[in-house]
Amino acid sequence: MTRRISILGATGSIGGSTLDLIARQPDRWRVAALTANCQAQELARLARRFDAEVAVVADETCLPELRDALAGSGIEAAGGAGALIESAARPVDITIAAIVGCAGLAPTMAAIEQGRTVALANKEALVSAGDVMKAAVARCGTVLLPMDSEHNAIFQCLAGNDPAYVRSITLTASGGPFRDWSMAQLAAATPAQAVKHPNWSMGAKISVDSATMFNKGLELIEAWHLFPVALDALRIIIHPQSVVHSMVEYRDGSTLAQLGPSDMRVPIASCLAWPERMDTPCPPLDLARLGELTFRPPDEDRFPATRLAREAAAAGGAAPAVLNAANEMAVAAFLAGHLPFTRIAVTVEELLARYVPPAAASLDEVIAIDAEARSVARQMLELV
Amino acid sequence: MTRRISILGATGSIGGSTLDLIARQPDRWRVAALTANCQAQELARLARRFDAEVAVVADETCLPELRDALAGSGIEAAGGAGALIESAARPVDITIAAIVGCAGLAPTMAAIEQGRTVALANKEALVSAGDVMKAAVARCGTVLLPMDSEHNAIFQCLAGNDPAYVRSITLTASGGPFRDWSMAQLAAATPAQAVKHPNWSMGAKISVDSATMFNKGLELIEAWHLFPVALDALRIIIHPQSVVHSMVEYRDGSTLAQLGPSDMRVPIASCLAWPERMDTPCPPLDLARLGELTFRPPDEDRFPATRLAREAAAAGGAAPAVLNAANEMAVAAFLAGHLPFTRIAVTVEELLARYVPPAAASLDEVIAIDAEARSVARQMLELV
Repeated sequence: MTRRISILGATGSIGGSTLDLIARQPDRWRVAALTANCQAQELARLARRFDAEVAVVADETCLPELRDALAGSGIEAAGGAGALIESAARPVDITIAAIVGCAGLAPTMAAIEQGRTVALANKEALVSAGDVMKAAVARCGTVLLPMDSEHNAIFQCLAGNDPAYVRSITLTASGGPFRDWSMAQLAAATPAQAVKHPNWSMGAKISVDSATMFNKGLELIEAWHLFPVALDALRIIIHPQSVVHSMVEYRDGSTLAQLGPSDMRVPIASCLAWPERMDTPCPPLDLARLGELTFRPPDEDRFPATRLAREAAAAGGAAPAVLNAANEMAVAAFLAGHLPFTRIAVTVEELLARYVPPAAASLDEVIAIDAEARSVARQMLELV
Repeated sequence: MTRRISILGATGSIGGSTLDLIARQPDRWRVAALTANCQAQELARLARRFDAEVAVVADETCLPELRDALAGSGIEAAGGAGALIESAARPVDITIAAIVGCAGLAPTMAAIEQGRTVALANKEALVSAGDVMKAAVARCGTVLLPMDSEHNAIFQCLAGNDPAYVRSITLTASGGPFRDWSMAQLAAATPAQAVKHPNWSMGAKISVDSATMFNKGLELIEAWHLFPVALDALRIIIHPQSVVHSMVEYRDGSTLAQLGPSDMRVPIASCLAWPERMDTPCPPLDLARLGELTFRPPDEDRFPATRLAREAAAAGGAAPAVLNAANEMAVAAFLAGHLPFTRIAVTVEELLARYVPPAAASLDEVIAIDAEARSVARQMLELV
């Protein structure tokens, strides 16, 4: 049976891994929409290769280049925010929602409103717009599959079990490149050091998030939205090898864990094939070769991000959205060399102390809060 | 809702752990039959405490003592093989089949033939009588729940997944007390050394099986009967901490593992409550405190048992039953000081080379083959 798929964020790392898997089952998939921000040449190449129906650049100024690159292909080219949302609303069996940042919110919402399956790799959808998105998922009867390796692991560990019997959920964290650094070392950490992640190959922003552990803080908020457990039933554990991707403990003392290689194609394949399973080219897990898996408690003195995330979730309102926006601004300032590494968390904490608007009731409100939080953060950062 | 339960083998370690859990939910359970081999006093105490309908000793000579001990209680007392089978056929919602050895076969079969739920802790049911038992399970529509920690772990890792998508199943093994011993040390191993298991508190026979790794070999044969995978998809890995109880790898590269304390109440609770979950008094898993989990490949030169088990399963016919009977006789000879530790596996291998009758078609044939294999093994052992 052929399934229709759209990939929102096709030129990113998640998009690339998804297309790698689809290329291995060409008869099973029909690509509807592929979207990118502005990489017109790469998007056109993918659209031709996968015979997409439509290719969309979010940045309308890139549309002429996309049109040229698709000339004669018969593939529709479109550009701009409206076209992006329209392409996300095009009927498919599954949408891969992998646009980074708040730019992904409206197209992700359009995909959710189809009432089919949405595999979610956009953090903001749950961190900043969790309540709004979840309401849409419930209203439209959408199947929401988490694509992050941690949340996908939890999803798999919950399969076949009633979530009412969950005692705790533990997100594993590599601890990032600075996990063994002292406070003094952290204070002097450079952007070049922060973007070198030990286990996963990722972009600069997300690598810094891994180094600060804001990545794990955001995942904690996502898990809190995705899975029906109390905030204090969500745990974090440092696991440098990143082999165990997360765990669910049940009230009888059984813990189920999902393990696998540090290859996003595993959770992506889990979403693409769910509730079935598909082959991936990922090598089998060889624990005997790995030899050991180690675990240790997180240190929230050196890495306050997970504490801040828990506090933001507990505070409610738009606190998680503010945390996310403040972190993005602080990371940008750090990457630009304007903010010491350890000031990232301090900036977020200060902003959370100063500015927490009530919960957003709509996507427009989410976006307005995000913009305002960024603006307040920008003012704060100029004072540093 | 009250559920009716019978415990075949109530005075053993599995029976005790089961009753410990039931005692914590007195309103949920109604005990039908409790059975023992000959421990009349202990059985009577349990029958009174749990207000059983009937208490049965397999050894009829112990019946007068049981009758005396139950006098005035209103609890029925019975004895002998026929009474044992009759009590196992008494209608219940779930039967705990925990009688050790071939003595457990006929009562386990009677429980299976009820067509309800049987939680299986008797190895022989699958190792020696696998085909016969599985046919009865299929014919009667019985739900068979594996109670061994490893098989229960696999059962949990398969929940919600189609077994067709399994790439491999890995049984973990502590490696036993001799896992780091040289061949020379193994040749001189004493019974006292062999019965000291590092992680689990168990009887002498099963402790020796853990030391030789015949325990894991028997579990491999059980897993091969229980789960629909090819023999070469069943793996064994040494994991000295016994925290990961087994794993299932899917074709997409996802591995699900079940972890927990070395406490049989966890898998027993999983069976008692299945498909729900019940509370146990077992402490939460604290991986940060444990610090590390280690893994290494098994060494089938020093510990040939798992190779022999794989070969017996592949040979088919009654080879697994012969392996089991030969191992029991050899372990008894070792415990009696008549056989060196390393000769246990040699004895099994020699017997398997000499005597493999065709597959049993009935329980009577299973029992006849078992008796004959023991007799041949006994002759062989007298020649050592």
